[in-house]
Amino acid sequence: MNYRIDNLQYCNWNEDIFMINRQAKLDAVHVTIAYHEDYDEVQKNIDEWKAYFNRFDELIFQGKSYKDIEKANKENKTAIFFGFQNCSPIEDDINLVEAVHKMGTVFMQLSYNNQSLLATGCYEENDSGVTRMGKEVIKEMNRVGIIVDMSHSAEKSTLDAIDISEKPIAITHANPSFWHQAKRNKSETLLKELGQSNGMIGLSLYPHHLLNGTDCSLESFCEMIARTADIMGAEHIGIGSDLCLNQPDSVVDWMRNGTWTKTKNYGEGSKDNAAFPRQPEWFKDATGFDNIKNGLKSLGFNKEEINGVLGNNWFNFYKNYIG
Amino acid sequence: MNYRIDNLQYCNWNEDIFMINRQAKLDAVHVTIAYHEDYDEVQKNIDEWKAYFNRFDELIFQGKSYKDIEKANKENKTAIFFGFQNCSPIEDDINLVEAVHKMGTVFMQLSYNNQSLLATGCYEENDSGVTRMGKEVIKEMNRVGIIVDMSHSAEKSTLDAIDISEKPIAITHANPSFWHQAKRNKSETLLKELGQSNGMIGLSLYPHHLLNGTDCSLESFCEMIARTADIMGAEHIGIGSDLCLNQPDSVVDWMRNGTWTKTKNYGEGSKDNAAFPRQPEWFKDATGFDNIKNGLKSLGFNKEEINGVLGNNWFNFYKNYIG
Repeated sequence: MNYRIDNLQYCNWNEDIFMINRQAKLDAVHVTIAYHEDYDEVQKNIDEWKAYFNRFDELIFQGKSYKDIEKANKENKTAIFFGFQNCSPIEDDINLVEAVHKMGTVFMQLSYNNQSLLATGCYEENDSGVTRMGKEVIKEMNRVGIIVDMSHSAEKSTLDAIDISEKPIAITHANPSFWHQAKRNKSETLLKELGQSNGMIGLSLYPHHLLNGTDCSLESFCEMIARTADIMGAEHIGIGSDLCLNQPDSVVDWMRNGTWTKTKNYGEGSKDNAAFPRQPEWFKDATGFDNIKNGLKSLGFNKEEINGVLGNNWFNFYKNYIG
Repeated sequence: MNYRIDNLQYCNWNEDIFMINRQAKLDAVHVTIAYHEDYDEVQKNIDEWKAYFNRFDELIFQGKSYKDIEKANKENKTAIFFGFQNCSPIEDDINLVEAVHKMGTVFMQLSYNNQSLLATGCYEENDSGVTRMGKEVIKEMNRVGIIVDMSHSAEKSTLDAIDISEKPIAITHANPSFWHQAKRNKSETLLKELGQSNGMIGLSLYPHHLLNGTDCSLESFCEMIARTADIMGAEHIGIGSDLCLNQPDSVVDWMRNGTWTKTKNYGEGSKDNAAFPRQPEWFKDATGFDNIKNGLKSLGFNKEEINGVLGNNWFNFYKNYIG
């Protein structure tokens, strides 16, 4: 059986988007339910999701195990898995790790761009690695069954997390920096360590992570996949599109600024380019998975490798490490 | 006029302690109202203090300005100034800096032993310095009038804070590490920078910060003051006793463990020495200020220097930088 999985989306959700994801044959999507939210605020986001699950029960349901991906595949639905792009929902309380797992959270980033209580973010000047609390929290995440996600974390912190975590970690959405130098993208050293530890990377379609941004070509993207496979093994590569469909620009402003600064921050953008960037033509939404499939075929990837990248590798990761 | 100020106490407060502080002729005490508390939890601690101010209005009142120290001196009372040993009360929201200042907070540590959102604590393995949010928050603290306190922070973070802050910073309670090597104590480099920037150190009487702990001699303590004065100037030295009178041992356990770890942490103590340490005989409470006065006299300090250390230096710091 082949599965299709997009391991990161943060859309302004509605029926159309759930239908597009079905049209794209996505059996599972890992959705972000927290950037800056604290524990109580995440409850509100989950309440919204519960309403979606009720209202659109022909299209989606909440996923908690790899079996839900199998079920989604059979029923032509999409299983929705919850994740956090920051550790803000556990506040400063290690006991909340188990609480958020009970709510269905299966991925949690240790930091989002900035320093957190657990690890350094990729936009900080210096990276002190995983902190004292971080070490404790990783142990607890391993125990309860939440995957450590280091997509927005800094290099030493990420290498530390790979070392400390008893389970492989994930980078749900980022690209290699050999292809495009962005603070969010990952070094070859890191990708090697990630592959060797059975970790996964979800390659991103967010224009700020792409060579030539919105104008990135499908061919270039697929060549990058080939080279990444050489570095870390094709079986550790999936997609984490980082699609933010239908979001107003106020949301990207909030992602970047939260409540941590009074000086306006433009993140990967700039004052003159502050908005959400436009998606490449060949990946305007998840139906672009078909283009990636064809692109990989043209480069000589075999069927198993292609199906791996499009979803089977994430499926195996879920099966082995989320359960 | 001479003032006596203890610039750090965290007692389990009652009438007896307020009377001892008066007996010790303390015109002002900076009290800790937060270690791990968030914004709402701090409100509860302030409500407790409001009840103390009502109930013991012959002994204490809330201080907000150096004028309250003058007033306390005239009325034979002790002005109580609020401070945080951690930035937990501002959570991840820079707007709360102004809110906590309105509640009367005049000192805030950027970190307490561990990494915070703002800076690294002295118990972390690596110190990445003041963070992106830390830089923003220092600017905001300067604007509203809260003094940056780095007592429990790591070295680079403290040097960064001295650099970044437009106002001098304080180390309200710590000792020099040339005298006693404790993670909490401060290097000569740091003390020099602190003095040159018109910052203050409050020397601590907490046994884990003292040479020979509980058995530390008054003479040794005063010799340490003399050498510290040579390094950073006597006018930048005060007392921050770190007295924790009447506290049950459950409190030191909470200070060390908060809710950040599931593995028991013993901080400066150890499994066999987990309790609050016993105070030296010559500083069982704030009446020990008189012993320090005599000890400094014996070493040849002049009156101005002695009165400076016992309170006038803190008074000047309050006058110049808190207002």
